[in-house]
Amino acid sequence: MKSEQKPINVAVVGATGAVGEEMIQGLESRKFPVGTLLPLTSERSAGTMISFSGREIETQNTTLEAFENIDLALFSAGSNVSQEWGRQLAQKGIVVIDNSRAFRMDSDVPLVVPEVNTDAISDTSRLIANPNCSTIQLVVALAALGEVCPLKRIVITTFQSASGAGRNAMDELRDQTVDLLNFREPKVNHFSRRLAFDVLPQIDTFEPDGYTGEEHKMINETRKILNLPDLPVTVTCVRVPVFVGHSMAVNVEFERDFAMEAMQNALANAQNLIFNEADEDFPTASDCAGADEVFVGRLRRDKSIAYAVDLWITADNLRKGAATNAIQIAEEMLVSGRWT
Amino acid sequence: MKSEQKPINVAVVGATGAVGEEMIQGLESRKFPVGTLLPLTSERSAGTMISFSGREIETQNTTLEAFENIDLALFSAGSNVSQEWGRQLAQKGIVVIDNSRAFRMDSDVPLVVPEVNTDAISDTSRLIANPNCSTIQLVVALAALGEVCPLKRIVITTFQSASGAGRNAMDELRDQTVDLLNFREPKVNHFSRRLAFDVLPQIDTFEPDGYTGEEHKMINETRKILNLPDLPVTVTCVRVPVFVGHSMAVNVEFERDFAMEAMQNALANAQNLIFNEADEDFPTASDCAGADEVFVGRLRRDKSIAYAVDLWITADNLRKGAATNAIQIAEEMLVSGRWT
Repeated sequence: MKSEQKPINVAVVGATGAVGEEMIQGLESRKFPVGTLLPLTSERSAGTMISFSGREIETQNTTLEAFENIDLALFSAGSNVSQEWGRQLAQKGIVVIDNSRAFRMDSDVPLVVPEVNTDAISDTSRLIANPNCSTIQLVVALAALGEVCPLKRIVITTFQSASGAGRNAMDELRDQTVDLLNFREPKVNHFSRRLAFDVLPQIDTFEPDGYTGEEHKMINETRKILNLPDLPVTVTCVRVPVFVGHSMAVNVEFERDFAMEAMQNALANAQNLIFNEADEDFPTASDCAGADEVFVGRLRRDKSIAYAVDLWITADNLRKGAATNAIQIAEEMLVSGRWT
Repeated sequence: MKSEQKPINVAVVGATGAVGEEMIQGLESRKFPVGTLLPLTSERSAGTMISFSGREIETQNTTLEAFENIDLALFSAGSNVSQEWGRQLAQKGIVVIDNSRAFRMDSDVPLVVPEVNTDAISDTSRLIANPNCSTIQLVVALAALGEVCPLKRIVITTFQSASGAGRNAMDELRDQTVDLLNFREPKVNHFSRRLAFDVLPQIDTFEPDGYTGEEHKMINETRKILNLPDLPVTVTCVRVPVFVGHSMAVNVEFERDFAMEAMQNALANAQNLIFNEADEDFPTASDCAGADEVFVGRLRRDKSIAYAVDLWITADNLRKGAATNAIQIAEEMLVSGRWT
C-alpha cells in the first residue's frame, strides 16, 4: 500500500451481526487504511459499543446523514436494508459493497470474487455485490480447475453451518443442543425443523421447480462470476449442526481429458486457496474457522464418467464467504487507485 | 404366516451392539416366530442381560456348541467374527444372515435387499449378506426409479450418523458435544477428527484411488444388488453429528427422457418406501429414527443435463439400514418355506 494513501472512511451496516462483526475485525486485521469507522445498525440496536483498533465505538442508527463523509460502505444487514440504501449511496459517489442478495444478479452490478473476476469491476463501478457464501468458496476452486480444462457440468452438495443464517440461528443450534442433552423439548424458531443432531435439506424457501432460493443463488451466481452463463450446475444445499464453516462435496465434469497432476498443481498454486493433497488431510469446518482462505481436499478422479473429479471444499462462511471477500474487493479498489 | 410354522431358534451374534439390539427388538416387534432366542457376544461381554418378549435372557460367549440347535444366525459383530463363523455354520445347515462386509462381494453369496432382489436367494442359499447401511436405503429408491427408465449414472453425497460406527461412536459424539458446550477440550478416539459440531468426509480408510472403503462399498454393492455391474456411480461419504439416521443427496441420470409424474408414482408405489412429495415435507434423520421404511423427498428434475433428477433419501441406519433388512431377509426365507 502506498504511504500517501489517504485514510478511507468506512461505514459497516449491520455492524453487530455475525458478518458485520467479522467485517470490522477484518478491516483491522488486514490493516485496511480506515480513517473513521462508522458502525451502523437498525434503530433498535443503535447505542451498542463495538471494538475497533483498541477503541470502543458506539453504533448509530442508519440514516442518510450518517453517510455524510463516508467513502466506503460495507452492507450486511439483509436485502431489504440494501435495497433501501445501496443505489442511492452509490449515486452519491460512495463505494457500496453489498453482502445481500439484493443486487447480485443485476446486469449493471459486478458480482466479484477477487481471486476470480476482478476484471468485472470497472472504473465507474460504485455498487458491487458480494456473492453468496457457498458460491464464493466454490468458484475459487472451480476457477483454478477450469484453467486446466473447460468445465462441463457441476454437481454440488453443501454442508452449511448455522452461522450462515446469522447469530440468532447459532444461538438456536446451541440452545437446541443443550435442551436435547438435558431431555427437554427443543424450541424451533429459526429453521423449519430442529437442527441439533439432524441435517436439513432446506436453506431459504422452495421455488416452483423444487430447488430452494439458496440453490438457485449458487447456480446463477456461479455462472455469473465464472462468466459461463450456460454452465450446467445442480446443487442440494443442506444445513448441518455446525456453528461456523461451510463444506461441500463437488463433482466436476470437464470437456476433455486432463492429467490429475495438472489439477493438483492448479489448486496448489491458486491464490488464497490451501490444497491439502494427502487424502487424510481433508479440511473441515473447525480447521478453517477464523481463516481467510478456501481449503480443498479429497481431490480424486471420478471413474464413473470419462473426464471428472470429486473434491471437498471448506471455508469460513463468515470470513472468506462474506466479510473477507468484501474487504478484498475494497482492497482491489484501493490498489487500483479508487481513493487517491 | 402359516399357523403350522415351527418356531425358529435364532442366534443374534453381537447382541449388545447398536445393531444387535435392534435385531432383537425387531424380531419381537415384527413377530418373527422365534423359538429360542440366543443372544451371543464376545467372551468379555457374556453375562449381560437383554430383554426379549418380556423375558430377561443372559448373553453367552460365541462358541460352536452354542449354535447346536440354532436354525438362523444373525451376525452383527464385525467382519472378523463373521469370517470366523459364517461359512462353517452355513455348512452345518444354519441360515446365516451377515451384516458385516465379510462376504458381500463373494460371488457365491447373495447380497439382498428384499424390496429389490429376493431373486438372488436360491433354495440352497445358507449364507446371505446384508448390505452396507447407506447402500440399502439408496437401492430401495434407485430400484423404483430404474423401473421407470434405465439408470445411467449416479452421484451421491451421504450424511451418515455416528451410530453407523457403533455404540462407542455415539457416546463419543455425546461426550464431545458436552465437552465443547462446557469449554473443555473434546477427546477424539473413534473418528479421525472431532465430530461434534463438524462434518468429516471420511468413513473407513482411504484406498489408493482416493476413495474410502465405505465409498467403494457403496459403489460395488449398489452394482451387485441392482445387477448392473457397470453402473457408473461416484460417491462422497460424510460423517455428520447426528446420532441415528443416514441421509443422502442423490443425483440420478437416466438413459432417456421420462415424465416426472412417472418417477413420483414409482416412488409413491414402492414397497416400504415413504415418498414425501411436497418439497417442504422433506424427511430428516430424526423423522425416520425408529422406522423400518426408507423415506424420500425433494424429488426434482435436474435441468443441468438432459435426463436427470435430484432427490433426498433418509432412513434409520440401524433398522432398515441393518437390523430390519436382515430380519426381512429371514422373513422372505420363512415365507418361501425354508424352515417347514
